[in-house]
Amino acid sequence: MEAVSKFKHVMPAQIRFSDVDQFGHVNNSVYFSLYDLAKTTYVNDVLGNANWGEMAIVVANISANFFTPVFFSDKVEIETSVVQLGNKSFTLLQRAVSAETREVKCECRTVMVLYDLILKEPMQIPDEYKHAICDFEEKSLEELAKK
Amino acid sequence: MEAVSKFKHVMPAQIRFSDVDQFGHVNNSVYFSLYDLAKTTYVNDVLGNANWGEMAIVVANISANFFTPVFFSDKVEIETSVVQLGNKSFTLLQRAVSAETREVKCECRTVMVLYDLILKEPMQIPDEYKHAICDFEEKSLEELAKK
Amino acid sequence: MEAVSKFKHVMPAQIRFSDVDQFGHVNNSVYFSLYDLAKTTYVNDVLGNANWGEMAIVVANISANFFTPVFFSDKVEIETSVVQLGNKSFTLLQRAVSAETREVKCECRTVMVLYDLILKEPMQIPDEYKHAICDFEEKSLEELAKK
Amino acid sequence: MEAVSKFKHVMPAQIRFSDVDQFGHVNNSVYFSLYDLAKTTYVNDVLGNANWGEMAIVVANISANFFTPVFFSDKVEIETSVVQLGNKSFTLLQRAVSAETREVKCECRTVMVLYDLILKEPMQIPDEYKHAICDFEEKSLEELAKK
Repeated sequence: MEAVSKFKHVMPAQIRFSDVDQFGHVNNSVYFSLYDLAKTTYVNDVLGNANWGEMAIVVANISANFFTPVFFSDKVEIETSVVQLGNKSFTLLQRAVSAETREVKCECRTVMVLYDLILKEPMQIPDEYKHAICDFEEKSLEELAKK
Repeated sequence: MEAVSKFKHVMPAQIRFSDVDQFGHVNNSVYFSLYDLAKTTYVNDVLGNANWGEMAIVVANISANFFTPVFFSDKVEIETSVVQLGNKSFTLLQRAVSAETREVKCECRTVMVLYDLILKEPMQIPDEYKHAICDFEEKSLEELAKK
Repeated sequence: MEAVSKFKHVMPAQIRFSDVDQFGHVNNSVYFSLYDLAKTTYVNDVLGNANWGEMAIVVANISANFFTPVFFSDKVEIETSVVQLGNKSFTLLQRAVSAETREVKCECRTVMVLYDLILKEPMQIPDEYKHAICDFEEKSLEELAKK
Repeated sequence: MEAVSKFKHVMPAQIRFSDVDQFGHVNNSVYFSLYDLAKTTYVNDVLGNANWGEMAIVVANISANFFTPVFFSDKVEIETSVVQLGNKSFTLLQRAVSAETREVKCECRTVMVLYDLILKEPMQIPDEYKHAICDFEEKSLEELAKK
């Protein structure tokens, strides 16, 4: 598990009965729906209303470690942080955490690329977005540029 | 269970591990995803490539009877038939059936309305669609007009 | 749409990005996952910890009217009420409602049967459950017995 | 993308209308449901009926690269291969591939651990399972032991 400073973006997750599989565990694929929703919420909260008709945030890689199962009765929160900010791509670290015990159930890194829907190629992340992310994470561009 | 003549449209369903709930049963909500897919397949198969940018098929009512559970190991087919054809709306009868025993697991009626996306109101079902449905179902317009 | 008195059980629903389909609408099948979760929550809230290893609540029929689509940005609540209480079965009325405008997006009736998992047959609803439901709904057994 | 020899296990995937998101793409989380189903199918096909009441295959890590989106109209197959076989764990390589063009849409590595449900700890993979996997993959234990 990665050593992380406190996450500034936390989203409570609503587990559905249909998320739970035959073993009584929230199915692995459901975590990715929840990470996806938390990612969307982070982008809305931190970047505001961008012009998503002209650009898109495309997922290039997802890598998740599963530590311990989530049960239907668990209260789970999704923590999200930008941990690396490049010129055309950035990396999210997310965790599914018990709201009661703070136990980390799963952690996930997602590499995303900003994509120009008109030119159909990766595009520079605008400076205003970089600043908004740095402000939210309370980190400098230099800190977030490190791989 | 409704007495029905043989269904002419049959779609094998692929049950996913994540469709199965804590009781080992395919969750009720999954049936509606499968009926939805079979409906889309029926429309493509029978009506061909319509202009879905200008009109939409909107679901007005869904009513389903659940007879017996579906398990992960079951082979299931979705049977679909248009059983009523009005001027602006039509009704589908669908069934989830065991491919092995022909046991009917669930049956569902869906009332759908053809909707003009430009005028934003229900629209007449074009005659060519009515004829295509009658041809496929091997029924006359009079038979399908009956409620 | 059914005329209803105020619902006493209201559950906020968390819409996921993956719930939204190609038309930008929450897919019809998702409503049933949300109704299912609200049903489970109602049962836990009103009946408490029953012995769900020995009995189950089985869905016999679901019937839903779809009035207007739900978008990703909508805040939606699921309202749930027992509207009919028989000896072995009961009926839920549920609605998906905009938390902001109170517009009813969809309403659903679900007929459920209490099922004895050991005898493998429908069973009498215990009196304590009937009383708990009547107390919660602030209705008499006579009122809830009416079809 | 990883250089791989021909996959011996191929499962056609049935894409559902509800799998497709607002952008017309199969949502990222859906891939994991399909990989999960292909994994279950692989285990059934290669290992046969094991005693899944006493042991479980637990996912420790999932890492996926997304190359190009899947659309509703795409025919997709999930290819699955065991690429590393340890004493208590093994690694799957899976790919979502266009059945028409053979384009690789996404590839995924999953590290799984065999878990003793009675002792509640990781357990040795039985020799008969190792042999069954080697036979199916047409590789020696030495080849599959390499990291």
